[in-house]
Amino acid sequence: MAETVLSTRVAPWSYTAGRLLLLDQRRLPHEEVFVECESAAQTAEAIQTLAVRGAPLIGVVAAFGLAVEARRVAARVPEDLDTALDLAAVRLAAARPTAMNLPGAVARMRRVIEASAGESFAERVAALEREAATIAEEDREACARISRHGADWLRGRSPSWRNGRAATILTHCNAGALATAGVGTALGIVRALAAEGPVSVLADETRPFLQGARLTAWELTRDEVPVTLLPDVAAAATIASGRVDAVIVGADRIAANGDVANKVGTYGLALACREHGVPFVVAAPTTTLDPACPDGRSIPIEFRDGEEVLLLATSEGWPVRLAPEGVSALYPAFDVTPARLTDAIVTERGVSEPPHAGGLKAFVS
Amino acid sequence: MAETVLSTRVAPWSYTAGRLLLLDQRRLPHEEVFVECESAAQTAEAIQTLAVRGAPLIGVVAAFGLAVEARRVAARVPEDLDTALDLAAVRLAAARPTAMNLPGAVARMRRVIEASAGESFAERVAALEREAATIAEEDREACARISRHGADWLRGRSPSWRNGRAATILTHCNAGALATAGVGTALGIVRALAAEGPVSVLADETRPFLQGARLTAWELTRDEVPVTLLPDVAAAATIASGRVDAVIVGADRIAANGDVANKVGTYGLALACREHGVPFVVAAPTTTLDPACPDGRSIPIEFRDGEEVLLLATSEGWPVRLAPEGVSALYPAFDVTPARLTDAIVTERGVSEPPHAGGLKAFVS
Repeated sequence: MAETVLSTRVAPWSYTAGRLLLLDQRRLPHEEVFVECESAAQTAEAIQTLAVRGAPLIGVVAAFGLAVEARRVAARVPEDLDTALDLAAVRLAAARPTAMNLPGAVARMRRVIEASAGESFAERVAALEREAATIAEEDREACARISRHGADWLRGRSPSWRNGRAATILTHCNAGALATAGVGTALGIVRALAAEGPVSVLADETRPFLQGARLTAWELTRDEVPVTLLPDVAAAATIASGRVDAVIVGADRIAANGDVANKVGTYGLALACREHGVPFVVAAPTTTLDPACPDGRSIPIEFRDGEEVLLLATSEGWPVRLAPEGVSALYPAFDVTPARLTDAIVTERGVSEPPHAGGLKAFVS
Repeated sequence: MAETVLSTRVAPWSYTAGRLLLLDQRRLPHEEVFVECESAAQTAEAIQTLAVRGAPLIGVVAAFGLAVEARRVAARVPEDLDTALDLAAVRLAAARPTAMNLPGAVARMRRVIEASAGESFAERVAALEREAATIAEEDREACARISRHGADWLRGRSPSWRNGRAATILTHCNAGALATAGVGTALGIVRALAAEGPVSVLADETRPFLQGARLTAWELTRDEVPVTLLPDVAAAATIASGRVDAVIVGADRIAANGDVANKVGTYGLALACREHGVPFVVAAPTTTLDPACPDGRSIPIEFRDGEEVLLLATSEGWPVRLAPEGVSALYPAFDVTPARLTDAIVTERGVSEPPHAGGLKAFVS
């Protein structure tokens, strides 16, 4: 059983010789179809429209988007390569504003573009493909380490879990295999715990895009980890009820002081955890850390189109309007949880506890 | 403009000579259709399936359900009247467990059934119809008083509102004209504020039944009160942003110590309000008070079928499945906010501030 839990792998993307395929996360769980990105612009659009999402994964995908673009331009108008890659890098880095991994991955690719300036077109394309693959491999490895560190930290915190009772983990959004190049961050820790003993997951449905209902439920069901959905509104009362052993979430950007930007709704969970003494754990690779942001106020928060709240996409491809015509909606896609509310920030380099500033600085140095 | 705001009345029910019509709230905002209840059983079913909802309103409707039943039985098998009304009262009071107004209204009707025992069938039917109309009229009057008391209390608390700026009120679920026999409780206060100056409402969409998106948005739009929808997950961050002047919600049952059961999600709002010093106001008629419940732990919390989370009803009459097949969901329909987090409990008899026990006791004596 423990092996089954860890053996299934969801592959939300693949890249082979200029061909970038993305599992279209807008159409899960109803259909498993892939979007093919034949240019950086298409890749940026896939990121922007949420065909692919998850902070670590959009960094990986943006890197491959530059590799795709390099192949495409090198085959047609190779003399435009530097100009094309410069534009592509700007476009990809700006596709969404909050996740740090996106500009971080693009900056790494830019360094390869510059370092390879004197080489042949074929060599430059190969160098970009290698770098993108390295970014993906490092994220895969980071997920594995985060999973171990997080499980160790939680085991130390709550030794009672091993007394025959399933550990109950509440999570928000999807910080799993569908959000990373590996087993996930928050769901990586869940998988590591599940390999050791019974675990049950309460997944917030995570309106409006329903990452919990559509993605976390799909991913965990495939891995045979028991998962029960919660309307987002029920999380605070469920935490108050005493049945939640820990809340584990991912992150999109972590400021130098440990303030965490993550999917909107995270902050409310952190408040409920503090009120009831439930460990609140943030799991993220160090590529999510932004030492240039002193605190949460300087993290750019994406506001998405209110229509995404008002219109629910259906598997039939047409949307259901949820509110009367003429009503508008406000949709901040992320919120900021202050550092003092996070009991642990788990990275591949170790676990930081509050006050985080020192611990996090060590992880990026 | 102020008159426009207060002049529109939504009539979520009507009763004429044995004919009880309920505006089917499951089909709003797309269609305005009525359900006709020809028996107490049909009335109980309408309450149970959320064709009609809102704590004060289901009390009123249950009372009329007994009037309907009395007419029906008196016309067919009058000798069965007492037995039939006894069964009907049990069935109606048990239709939903949390709202106090439901058993409260049924208990009032039972007293009329007993007091009229020696009278003619026609007289008994008329007495029940009079009592139901009185319950409705008292609720209508309570809403008007709550609106004034609440607006006065808020004006005293936040005099800065009158400095040319619109007051921004965040509300959850629907505690309006669609939930009462009058202008509403929380939305009654909003209407009273709107009659005095600019008011803007942020409405939580309130998954899974979407009372905010479907009902509050519909009702306020008709009254020309500006309303913007928020995904429930965005409420805590919006409160943290400083743009919310007060949160006002209704209640389904209030314990003797001031603990408040209301639509699930209310507790999380109260935690965010306390964290950011935003007034958290509960508006409810005294028919919602339950002196027999010492505190929130003794309030029965309804758990509804998880399918209501997993399947979204559409205006086309067929549901959209939101999660993979085989996944279950947990749906506590209410949560409990501890008395200490409520800055004001506004009733038709006045406003109670914490600690509430004394103030509330005076309201029920």
